[in-house]
Amino acid sequence: MDILVVGSVALDTVETPFGKIVEGLGGSATHFSTSASFFTTPHLVGVVGEDFPETHVDFLKSRKIDLAGLQKKPGRTFRWSGRYSFDLNSAETLDTQLNVFQHFFPELPASYRGKEIVFLANIDPELQSRVIDQCEKPKWIALDTMNFWIQGKKEALAKTLKRVNALFINEGEARQLTGESNLIKAAKKIREQGPATVVIKRGEYGALLFHENQIFSAPALPLEDVKDPTGAGDSFAGGFIGHIARTNDLGFENLKKACILGSVMASFIVEEFSLDRFRRLTQNEIELRYAEFRRLTHFETYPF
Amino acid sequence: MDILVVGSVALDTVETPFGKIVEGLGGSATHFSTSASFFTTPHLVGVVGEDFPETHVDFLKSRKIDLAGLQKKPGRTFRWSGRYSFDLNSAETLDTQLNVFQHFFPELPASYRGKEIVFLANIDPELQSRVIDQCEKPKWIALDTMNFWIQGKKEALAKTLKRVNALFINEGEARQLTGESNLIKAAKKIREQGPATVVIKRGEYGALLFHENQIFSAPALPLEDVKDPTGAGDSFAGGFIGHIARTNDLGFENLKKACILGSVMASFIVEEFSLDRFRRLTQNEIELRYAEFRRLTHFETYPF
Repeated sequence: MDILVVGSVALDTVETPFGKIVEGLGGSATHFSTSASFFTTPHLVGVVGEDFPETHVDFLKSRKIDLAGLQKKPGRTFRWSGRYSFDLNSAETLDTQLNVFQHFFPELPASYRGKEIVFLANIDPELQSRVIDQCEKPKWIALDTMNFWIQGKKEALAKTLKRVNALFINEGEARQLTGESNLIKAAKKIREQGPATVVIKRGEYGALLFHENQIFSAPALPLEDVKDPTGAGDSFAGGFIGHIARTNDLGFENLKKACILGSVMASFIVEEFSLDRFRRLTQNEIELRYAEFRRLTHFETYPF
Repeated sequence: MDILVVGSVALDTVETPFGKIVEGLGGSATHFSTSASFFTTPHLVGVVGEDFPETHVDFLKSRKIDLAGLQKKPGRTFRWSGRYSFDLNSAETLDTQLNVFQHFFPELPASYRGKEIVFLANIDPELQSRVIDQCEKPKWIALDTMNFWIQGKKEALAKTLKRVNALFINEGEARQLTGESNLIKAAKKIREQGPATVVIKRGEYGALLFHENQIFSAPALPLEDVKDPTGAGDSFAGGFIGHIARTNDLGFENLKKACILGSVMASFIVEEFSLDRFRRLTQNEIELRYAEFRRLTHFETYPF
């Protein structure tokens, strides 16, 4: 199956201890779709300004991403600028220019409305709900969110949460959303609010998958050279949901594989700035890294 | 094979959001030996004062721990008092009374000197070296240390490191010891200084095992109720090294199992205060939890 994705398309200026990129291709919908494009066809809803470089459009098209829902509006494209300190765990935002993204209203082209797998990247929960309204036969909807909405739009977020099947959220934000420091308790509380599946992202420590009463722990691949962590979370979701869409199987064993493929895609994206690593990524590399995750985590049965 | 262990025997007063224990049985050698006693026979070197309760001695004996090397000196037993905040990740030390531990000199009884597997728990690196001097045919020596010695006894620690086969260290301390924020680079630097095997402990995120050019990632078991994290690191080392001693196999596949058994023992000790969980732990529970770690981490081969 295909995936419908709604989120930001941006030009990112990012500085890390290992270099800098000025106005590189960024945004949650962009990272997600490019990652998911290795597994299925993403249909993107977003907005750019008149200044959005044609080369970026060409790249997204080369990944067979459907851009029928990418609006072009008068004005400038959304810009984000940030800096990562030495440990690369959290970005300091230097500048945010919403530009055309400020008045973004996600409108689904007719050809998108029948899509069954939906990813609502991190945007205003009210807009996320307006997207669901336009879906004619959604089968599995996943949502991402952030501290800004947890704090500022608590009620709208709670309403949207009720309508989705899965939540992708950072560890700190899961604690913030539920008031629980223990992640098992936090995941339980979230599941009581709607989504049957909760994926808690822990950056360099990997991710925890909660589904019904089962838990799966996926490590992050220990990497010697992380150049730019921007987009790791959306690339993770892209691999995860790309696999779900491709296999159309929501069983726990398949969700585990999805979680590892998400981790695989996140492990690639951080190796270079912007989306550069995905530009030359091959299916064979994905397969080899998946095997690397197995070597990293698997062990024999009880010894005695 | 048996294990020789040198470290502290203490009376711990611990407060967490979930309760408090006053002068409970504690100390690195105590946690390590009790944990290891589920796998092999530990021979303990340590010191207590005249006030050390006989019930604690009886408990250690009931676990078949050899106490021939436990010195009893005039004065009071080492006491530590600490408090854990809500997230349970780090203890605030409220009081430390070294008492008889201040002038502790580890002397190995004749019956201990031929032991081949040695664990040097977190004590002064000079004393750790004096223990190695007394070992007649050490085959595999593992060392634990902490920020206090990394900062205050850098050279002595470097000398001791050269003489050991494995280092057990916290994530933050690995970074402090090497000046590397990246853990792969940190582990490489440590391995260049001596130990072929490096185990980096990451608390609620589990542990990373580095051995030759291979890496293994063990998760911590997500637990809904952690009562008292004191001794988790030493209990981890006890399960890890207990398994190594029992199997006498230093191959990577066996080190992985050791790492999981360490995680299993750590997951038990934090469920209750002091050593209480180990008092009623059974081999069957260890086996079941080992299987739980497999379910938590294992996934099928590449999907397509």
